[in-house]
Amino acid sequence: MFKKLKSLLIGRTLQSTEAEHEKFNVLWGLPILSSDAISSVSYACEEILMVLVPVVALGAYKPLLLIAAAIIVLLFILVFSYRQTIDNYPNGGGSYSVATDNLGHVPGLIAASSLSIDYILTVAVSVSSGVAAIVSAFPELLPYKVWIALAIVALLTLGNLRGIRESSVLFGVPTYMFMLTVLAMIFVGLIKVLVRGTVPVEPSVQAAAAASSLGDMSIVLLLKAFSSGCTALTGVEAVSNGIPNFRHPAQKHAKQVLTLLALIVLVIFGGVCTLASVYKIAPQHDVTVMAQIAIQVFGAHSVMFYAVQVTTAIILIMAANTAFADLPLLLSLLGRDGYMARQFTSRGARLSFSNGIILLFLVASVLIVVFHAETHQLIPLYAVGVFLSFTLSQAGMFKRWITRREGNWHHKAVINGIGTAVTAVTCVIIAVSKFTHGAWMVIVCIPLLVLLMLRIKRHYIHVRANLYIEGEGRNAIFREQPAGHIVVPVQSVNKSFIKALNYAMYLNGEKEVYHVSVDPAATEKVRRHYEELGTDIPLVVENAPYRNVNEVLYEHIRRKHGELGKHEMLTVVMPQFIIPKWWNNPLHNQTARLLKGKLMKFRNIALVTIPYIINE
Amino acid sequence: MFKKLKSLLIGRTLQSTEAEHEKFNVLWGLPILSSDAISSVSYACEEILMVLVPVVALGAYKPLLLIAAAIIVLLFILVFSYRQTIDNYPNGGGSYSVATDNLGHVPGLIAASSLSIDYILTVAVSVSSGVAAIVSAFPELLPYKVWIALAIVALLTLGNLRGIRESSVLFGVPTYMFMLTVLAMIFVGLIKVLVRGTVPVEPSVQAAAAASSLGDMSIVLLLKAFSSGCTALTGVEAVSNGIPNFRHPAQKHAKQVLTLLALIVLVIFGGVCTLASVYKIAPQHDVTVMAQIAIQVFGAHSVMFYAVQVTTAIILIMAANTAFADLPLLLSLLGRDGYMARQFTSRGARLSFSNGIILLFLVASVLIVVFHAETHQLIPLYAVGVFLSFTLSQAGMFKRWITRREGNWHHKAVINGIGTAVTAVTCVIIAVSKFTHGAWMVIVCIPLLVLLMLRIKRHYIHVRANLYIEGEGRNAIFREQPAGHIVVPVQSVNKSFIKALNYAMYLNGEKEVYHVSVDPAATEKVRRHYEELGTDIPLVVENAPYRNVNEVLYEHIRRKHGELGKHEMLTVVMPQFIIPKWWNNPLHNQTARLLKGKLMKFRNIALVTIPYIINE
Repeated sequence: MFKKLKSLLIGRTLQSTEAEHEKFNVLWGLPILSSDAISSVSYACEEILMVLVPVVALGAYKPLLLIAAAIIVLLFILVFSYRQTIDNYPNGGGSYSVATDNLGHVPGLIAASSLSIDYILTVAVSVSSGVAAIVSAFPELLPYKVWIALAIVALLTLGNLRGIRESSVLFGVPTYMFMLTVLAMIFVGLIKVLVRGTVPVEPSVQAAAAASSLGDMSIVLLLKAFSSGCTALTGVEAVSNGIPNFRHPAQKHAKQVLTLLALIVLVIFGGVCTLASVYKIAPQHDVTVMAQIAIQVFGAHSVMFYAVQVTTAIILIMAANTAFADLPLLLSLLGRDGYMARQFTSRGARLSFSNGIILLFLVASVLIVVFHAETHQLIPLYAVGVFLSFTLSQAGMFKRWITRREGNWHHKAVINGIGTAVTAVTCVIIAVSKFTHGAWMVIVCIPLLVLLMLRIKRHYIHVRANLYIEGEGRNAIFREQPAGHIVVPVQSVNKSFIKALNYAMYLNGEKEVYHVSVDPAATEKVRRHYEELGTDIPLVVENAPYRNVNEVLYEHIRRKHGELGKHEMLTVVMPQFIIPKWWNNPLHNQTARLLKGKLMKFRNIALVTIPYIINE
Repeated sequence: MFKKLKSLLIGRTLQSTEAEHEKFNVLWGLPILSSDAISSVSYACEEILMVLVPVVALGAYKPLLLIAAAIIVLLFILVFSYRQTIDNYPNGGGSYSVATDNLGHVPGLIAASSLSIDYILTVAVSVSSGVAAIVSAFPELLPYKVWIALAIVALLTLGNLRGIRESSVLFGVPTYMFMLTVLAMIFVGLIKVLVRGTVPVEPSVQAAAAASSLGDMSIVLLLKAFSSGCTALTGVEAVSNGIPNFRHPAQKHAKQVLTLLALIVLVIFGGVCTLASVYKIAPQHDVTVMAQIAIQVFGAHSVMFYAVQVTTAIILIMAANTAFADLPLLLSLLGRDGYMARQFTSRGARLSFSNGIILLFLVASVLIVVFHAETHQLIPLYAVGVFLSFTLSQAGMFKRWITRREGNWHHKAVINGIGTAVTAVTCVIIAVSKFTHGAWMVIVCIPLLVLLMLRIKRHYIHVRANLYIEGEGRNAIFREQPAGHIVVPVQSVNKSFIKALNYAMYLNGEKEVYHVSVDPAATEKVRRHYEELGTDIPLVVENAPYRNVNEVLYEHIRRKHGELGKHEMLTVVMPQFIIPKWWNNPLHNQTARLLKGKLMKFRNIALVTIPYIINE
């Protein structure tokens, strides 16, 4: 039943050799891996204006364009850096690989922790703000916000469990539609300005200007606005992390996608900021900057206005999908290196890393429920991790050049050095300014995650050392049979016990049938029935005045275990009757299971379970 | 740790032979077993007035006294009947035993179901209304109603897990205090009336009289009022059910307690109804009839007013305690007869029937949470079961006399015949009038419970038949050793595997080491390491193209199992490494456990688990 449901939901099981067929080309890799970066454009411009407009009002639009230009420059620095990373790290891993390789394990794990938290937040933030976009267009859905968000996360989970390529087809087309819609908006918007000449100032800006005491443009203000706008850069990491998902030649394809991504962000982000500037858009509480621009360009309630809203919602959901592609991959890398549970390295029925996908589903759902799918509560948690991992990645590349000093290293080191400095400064500014709004949670979680991963590694090393055979394997095999002891517990002489007894009878070693007495009459019956069987195995009876049968049995086995000689094993043969209908299990004592768990803690024990099936 | 906590909470474990010391004498048996009956007095008078006053206003007080007299007559009929029951059923069981013995199994089970539901409702109703009394006196506790109720149920559970006598001491004294307080109220109240001569009519009655069109006194109205007042009789069953809890001579002690109980109810119920009549008390929404009488007699905010409120609350909690004494006993009787899970028949560390106590705790807590500890929502569910079990018990005794026709059977049959008729009529009236208010739930649950108990019985009979050895036991033992097959699965040649292999090597039968291959390189490594060991057991390798290692292993074992000859067993030796710290378990694949569960469904399999302890 469960199997059928599973195959209905996620498709037929695929053979391991079918893996190659499930990889990206450039056309489908671009929407899957770049949607995070592209979608962040939809709120980055707004974030900048949110810092500037309340202070300098109509004076905000010149610095907006300057900051947008600076961010695009930073984007190209990141793209150049990551192209170099792709060249040097063909197996993916992004910041984690780069930081580990060049800076050491702990910086690598810090990057990995930041990234992991980030991917989870990407899902929660993007889905929540996608739902907010849907709900703004269709306010009657407002009461079901959290449920809609959870349903979307569940759908993404199923889509990703089905496998990579199918999700490209499913998710790629809408991403391209978003790009086309926004490009159309930019094109029409600019044409309109050129035709009309001037544009009326938005009343909201005038209101903001009137309300605030006109402040001065300061360096601090510019840096704050810059760092707010840097949310446009989240998701650049995704491409270099996802190299193994590309078709051969993977590195070339990844670099093509990364370059295309940068160009798209350049056009869209630049275009949106320009339009915001010429139309003098100011952030409002209930209408996004994108929506305001769309209204100015196409008119309210126009088809194109709805198209912008809907495709924005969809691209935000696609951004969440990026995390579904990348977090499981990162976890599988961490699992391979022993920093995460091994289960994350195994591919599921459809060749995706099912365990990572399911973990992401669970944690993101919890976040959505806890934060009531409110984007603005989740956003402050979001940016710190992104820039911490950027900084570590850039610093890693920088160190690589200055230690190796090969080829054109001066030029490369300068690019990465600037990148390190800028991202580090941004990271610190975000951490400080958003600390009390929620960034503290991330700042607390990152070292805890690093600690957890170090402990997991230590545990695996410890287990492997324990299981490792020293010297020649041949010597570990006993060439002579050691003596053994066999205990067969009995509560009542029935078919189930007799089956166990028949099995035990021909094991090698000293045997005993062992009975714990609670009620003298019952014990007498057991003794009589046992004697009727006519075996030569002695019946040992012990009393349990406190009715704790299993404890007395346990103590007896402990004593016997203590008397074992070298290499000797104590075999406990336990009859267990199996009831075909599981719902009848509560009618039978389940304490035998607990007892078995306790007996497993002995070093030289063999637990033999002889099932006896009760017929229907 | 858990053990220490357990012994701190419920006391040291007692030996089975200490059971006799834990039984009641009359002094402590009375408060424990009669609190249910005595406490119901506190709302029975109110229930009658609630029917009468809205219809006939000041005309209500003459029929009140008539009905009270009729109920007391019915009480004495019940007492006489139950004294006869105690004589005939020294092992307790009440309605269940009587109905089963005289009417057959299904009527017995109907009585048992009604009683079980009733005991659970006793806890929920009494605790809820006890909390309501507390909250009326201390309104600042109102928001914590449900939590207080749950805490009380938890305390009762602990008290009962500690054992019987300690709970007598703990709970007996306050019950006596309630009796004294109410007797004082009746005494002072009557003196006051004799001194003053007349009493002013309560304004609430005048209001009720003014509001209602004065109706006619009809037979239907009287029967309704009578059946409402019959809640005073809940709990009479408890004494005859609890005979085994009395000290020797148990029957004599039980009969003494039953007679004392009837006399106390006579005085208290009669007294309260008389006071209500002379003070012309009418039911109000926020002040109980008892509280109104106490205010009239002692004055509002007097110490004695609070004493009445608090002792009322406490006796209601004691009533809940009755159910904690009796439901586990009933369940143990049902368990003994095979109609309930066997676990209910075993006594816990302190000799109480722990499983029944814990079940009652859980179900009552759920009811309290679901019904928000609102007494008036639970009450309609309550009375049907009580009177159904009364009716069956009385009918059983009636049938006993008319079939046996021994001694003074005419006289006895008349008493039980009247009892049967009256309780049956009451039962039908309650079921009809309260059907839509919640009684339907009980009417649905009773047959479902009966069905469940019949199925449990059938299951136990079936299991016993399956385990029963036909013919001479001697023939069931194999006199010759059957051939066997042994499979040792291997994933990696490590110490854990070698330990299992060493054990398997000296088992009798044809052996193989079995490996499922997912990754050719890993398989090659296993093959090389295994060959180094130099054993003569062959290594069998099978491929799992779909990575489903356990399914392939399962299929292999299924095939092998199919090839077994008569009496032959397939032994699967599974190494399992044990991690001392349980929280590390998620780091290791737990699918082996699932596999074991599936293998247990084979008829001729022996599952050998060889634990390998990972050192700290």
